Amino acid sequence: MSKLIRFSVSIEEDLIEAFDALCRQRGWSNRSEAIRDAIRRQLVEQEWKVGEEVAGVITLLYDHHKTGLAKRLTEIQHDALAEVISATHVHIDHANCLEFIAVKGEATTIERLAHRLIGLKGVKHGELTGTSTGKKIR
Amino acid sequence: MSKLIRFSVSIEEDLIEAFDALCRQRGWSNRSEAIRDAIRRQLVEQEWKVGEEVAGVITLLYDHHKTGLAKRLTEIQHDALAEVISATHVHIDHANCLEFIAVKGEATTIERLAHRLIGLKGVKHGELTGTSTGKKIR
Amino acid sequence: MSKLIRFSVSIEEDLIEAFDALCRQRGWSNRSEAIRDAIRRQLVEQEWKVGEEVAGVITLLYDHHKTGLAKRLTEIQHDALAEVISATHVHIDHANCLEFIAVKGEATTIERLAHRLIGLKGVKHGELTGTSTGKKIR
Amino acid sequence: MSKLIRFSVSIEEDLIEAFDALCRQRGWSNRSEAIRDAIRRQLVEQEWKVGEEVAGVITLLYDHHKTGLAKRLTEIQHDALAEVISATHVHIDHANCLEFIAVKGEATTIERLAHRLIGLKGVKHGELTGTSTGKKIR
Repeated sequence: MSKLIRFSVSIEEDLIEAFDALCRQRGWSNRSEAIRDAIRRQLVEQEWKVGEEVAGVITLLYDHHKTGLAKRLTEIQHDALAEVISATHVHIDHANCLEFIAVKGEATTIERLAHRLIGLKGVKHGELTGTSTGKKIR
Repeated sequence: MSKLIRFSVSIEEDLIEAFDALCRQRGWSNRSEAIRDAIRRQLVEQEWKVGEEVAGVITLLYDHHKTGLAKRLTEIQHDALAEVISATHVHIDHANCLEFIAVKGEATTIERLAHRLIGLKGVKHGELTGTSTGKKIR
Repeated sequence: MSKLIRFSVSIEEDLIEAFDALCRQRGWSNRSEAIRDAIRRQLVEQEWKVGEEVAGVITLLYDHHKTGLAKRLTEIQHDALAEVISATHVHIDHANCLEFIAVKGEATTIERLAHRLIGLKGVKHGELTGTSTGKKIR
Repeated sequence: MSKLIRFSVSIEEDLIEAFDALCRQRGWSNRSEAIRDAIRRQLVEQEWKVGEEVAGVITLLYDHHKTGLAKRLTEIQHDALAEVISATHVHIDHANCLEFIAVKGEATTIERLAHRLIGLKGVKHGELTGTSTGKKIR
């Protein structure tokens, strides 16, 4: 566990008042937490830029009626065993499925995997969302 | 099932050659699929803008040692039963957890829910990733 | 001029050390300025969301050889006199031009104007970059 | 000038109808132009990723009353003569200025320059908008 320290920030009074109002509106617990969030967000972006070990989720929307698609999705995930942690399948309606694939690994490897899955015929929409393994981000 | 139609696009030869090279590099199956993807991506963005029923995933990275956090996460999700479809928990290491919460509902309701969760003390990083229920997007 | 106040943030020591390293690397003057930046960035996003008076720049890349394009660009800008502040034209090479159009006004009006310009035949690439008039952001 | 070719795309009828409606709504001239736009947008993103020669605009919002800021902005731009093409200054009100700096060069050099400028004390908001020199993008 890392030691907690305190530091102070000087800021224009009406700027911080506007920010406090935004925090209340968005439901953030408080100003300090919002600032820690902003700091961590930048560190996560940096992890993706330098290509270190990152974590993320690949979100796929598809129609499970498309012939061969489910099989292709499974094959590609098994080819990427080192990166894929888990997959969650959600039934939206008779035709539409959402699949959330939790991934971990080197940033460009993850990006290539996401592109392969999102680019499959029958996948209607896909996104790669980057987060962190949290190892360096307290 | 919607009827398939064909339409033609006129384009500069070297522009489409550069795009074909990019498709190969990213692992997209082919040019047509890449174009359908681009079209669907814009329709998904539009669904989020007009605030219709959308789907998405809220990704949370947190340290499960934080007192009371797991309880708060569960409470907020139960308060939002109408929106939350499922939650997947992934153990990254001794301290770090990733949670992927599949959600569905009106865009601003989803955004407010995401802000509440991401803004909790102990959540290190969070993202709301927007996708679609696929009902209007073939 | 708004009064300066000080507030303090408690944070894990290694988190703030990682952030200080990132600040140095990116050339930010210091930690406080980086935090004020993060705060202002969120306030600017919020101004665009609520649709208040915002400012921005529409960046257009185009080939000035395209018949009628320069005329269309000028006409649309003159139709939007209330929003367009200035336009700067940069010659990239024999064919390619960059145009930066400074705009100010209500968010959705600006977005519609940007779409009209970016969607013109002959415009190769365009972006709308949102910033603020600074009136509410100190 | 590159030769124009035609290619055809097969697509679900209701998908292209939804897209045509979106094109009309956003003011894009037509479906083909919207598709060419989507293709070029991806090629521009790729240029920034591989770090080739790119073009862009750095947008800065600042209060010109801040002592020493205008001087610092000018100095940094002169240090980056190889990248800076032009700067346009817009007076928003008594205190607020917008400055649009057109830049050209290697992607990471441009990013570093943008960070230096945006990180200056007194700059309230800044963005780097990426576009292309258009040399490879017809």
